[in-house]
Amino acid sequence: MTTSATRGPVLGVIGGGQLARMTIHAAGRLGIDVRLLATPSDESAPGAVAHTVRGDARRLSTLEWFARECDVVTFDHEGIDPDVVERLEVAHVVRPGSVTLRFADKAHQRVELAALGHPVPGFEVTDALSLHDAARELGRRVVVKEARGGYDGRGVHIASGEAALDRVARLGPPERRLVVEECLDIRQELSVLVVRTPGGETVTYPAVETVQVDGVCREVVTPARVPADLSRDAEMLALRLAQDMEAVGVLAVELFVVGDGRLVVNEVAPRPHNSGHLTIEGSATSQFENHVRAVLDMPLGATTPTAPAVAMVNILGASEGDPRQRLAAALAVPDAHVHLYGKSPRAGRKLGHVTARGDTHQQAVDRARAAARALVPDHLRGGRTR
Amino acid sequence: MTTSATRGPVLGVIGGGQLARMTIHAAGRLGIDVRLLATPSDESAPGAVAHTVRGDARRLSTLEWFARECDVVTFDHEGIDPDVVERLEVAHVVRPGSVTLRFADKAHQRVELAALGHPVPGFEVTDALSLHDAARELGRRVVVKEARGGYDGRGVHIASGEAALDRVARLGPPERRLVVEECLDIRQELSVLVVRTPGGETVTYPAVETVQVDGVCREVVTPARVPADLSRDAEMLALRLAQDMEAVGVLAVELFVVGDGRLVVNEVAPRPHNSGHLTIEGSATSQFENHVRAVLDMPLGATTPTAPAVAMVNILGASEGDPRQRLAAALAVPDAHVHLYGKSPRAGRKLGHVTARGDTHQQAVDRARAAARALVPDHLRGGRTR
Repeated sequence: MTTSATRGPVLGVIGGGQLARMTIHAAGRLGIDVRLLATPSDESAPGAVAHTVRGDARRLSTLEWFARECDVVTFDHEGIDPDVVERLEVAHVVRPGSVTLRFADKAHQRVELAALGHPVPGFEVTDALSLHDAARELGRRVVVKEARGGYDGRGVHIASGEAALDRVARLGPPERRLVVEECLDIRQELSVLVVRTPGGETVTYPAVETVQVDGVCREVVTPARVPADLSRDAEMLALRLAQDMEAVGVLAVELFVVGDGRLVVNEVAPRPHNSGHLTIEGSATSQFENHVRAVLDMPLGATTPTAPAVAMVNILGASEGDPRQRLAAALAVPDAHVHLYGKSPRAGRKLGHVTARGDTHQQAVDRARAAARALVPDHLRGGRTR
Repeated sequence: MTTSATRGPVLGVIGGGQLARMTIHAAGRLGIDVRLLATPSDESAPGAVAHTVRGDARRLSTLEWFARECDVVTFDHEGIDPDVVERLEVAHVVRPGSVTLRFADKAHQRVELAALGHPVPGFEVTDALSLHDAARELGRRVVVKEARGGYDGRGVHIASGEAALDRVARLGPPERRLVVEECLDIRQELSVLVVRTPGGETVTYPAVETVQVDGVCREVVTPARVPADLSRDAEMLALRLAQDMEAVGVLAVELFVVGDGRLVVNEVAPRPHNSGHLTIEGSATSQFENHVRAVLDMPLGATTPTAPAVAMVNILGASEGDPRQRLAAALAVPDAHVHLYGKSPRAGRKLGHVTARGDTHQQAVDRARAAARALVPDHLRGGRTR
């Protein structure tokens, strides 16, 4: 650690997307110096922080050069090779560390969580050549996931029958690792954020309900519309996962509620998460501030909700138009908090989000959707609107 | 206006202090591109925004060069020469404009407000040579203010008797303009923030109570502990001032409650203001976001409080130590929101603030003070602690 005696800590953030941007805003408010390592293509980085350097975060030499100026290094994504991070950890403080980052590999994640006794779908780890054999025991309809690199539904395929499996197998090199899973009877999707310090102090945000369309999160509401004991179970499960994964900072745990009322782990992400954006206005302390506090080993902030109900709607790029041009219309919607990330619009791209508080779920959702419609007139096309 | 058809507006901000920093954060969240014109000595600018250029904002040529890349230009201070701004306005959109910025001159302000029938202290405008004559009618004890350049109590002197007046007169060139005012029996100090769009739409934040020590704001609490009709009168007075001054953006109106219960205008500041920092967590929309909305001529956000009581305590530099080194201790205080501005510590310098919400005034104040004490152990030394 290189903390100078005359100033505060220096936090290094790897990744230049909106999660880094919001993390940096939270850190900046606390007076923490942030250095950002972004790739040349990251658009959100400018405007968020001055100390931006550009480089390839996959290379150990780049990471070591970057980490030398930081007291603690963290990430806005889990796509860094954990073997590289393990070597970086020899001389630098990296949070979360390589043990946690290995869970970004979906095969590793499923095997480890099953071994620890956590509820996961029936699954097999295989390569593309053996996909048919692996799928056979899991039913006619299965979910096939690339072990590495997928997000927002990319790298996840639902396949029914031999021809469909063949098509998925041929999407990449035959030797690549795949996870095949049983198709569950999903009734609801929840997400729980846990924040954990290096010493094991934890706080948990109340479970939120997420609405996905084509694998992309469209809306989040809190509190989740499930029985109180199910919420509590979800929060306890997420807490145990954070401990078992040795998470430091935010760990997002996405859960399925299946037909018989059981909870099943869908995905885990060791970083601030889209399902937690509503904590900026909806919680006493945002997920971004608590991530910063945790990785710097400082006391965590309260996760108390600031309203009876809070809703978040993602702003996805439409076929044409830039939401920034429609900002005034969105600001005319009372009590909606508009966040735009400064990214060029592209169909389906996450360009921002809107959060609204309310006395009821419906009121919060209506407010957030009204502002979202003002920004992207066709934003709910194709989506569930329950 | 140079708004491109394919992105949002570009906001130019002149000034590199904490007010610019917080304004830029609010604008950034809305996806608005910000360009900052800072002087080489402004410390808060780095870390707040990438598009920072450096230059002398007193020169018309610098301002014109800067404004060429912006759709709207605004300020974080009122120290720009209004004659220069008037020339800048010929080809650029400047908000607030020169008419409003002229009120930064305390002589102009007193004369104009009195002519408009607003309640001001008894006063005379004079130069240093005629100070004795001007003061004679206003009582033995008077307040002498430099017409230009004072803030946080600087440039304001209380003088009793001839010798004291002589000392004040000799503090600067004899021909400089001074305002001499009667000494009022001040019982309380209030501040009201009004936000006004170019078209005259306005919102008003509820009156807050401010506690000053040696002319520097130490604490702010809302709602103000005054009768409801006095709060309403203060808000109506501030609204009329905003209209009369043709304010655009935030106008802060500082008021005295004097012995007989009357309101008297102390100061006006046409920009986001220290007395409004608690709106970040304490209002549905912060003063910074509403300033950005107003100067960009967008709909204003609600000013509804988010808690029954909110308190803000300024973090002033002590004789030694850097609050950034004590951040962990402050974060251990529940429900306190810590803001540090990234400035090097110096005795008396505003380095940050802490805001806390509560069910009662006392609870909010206690929480904010506890975190402030953690950051600067002797922060209330010499201050009123009622």
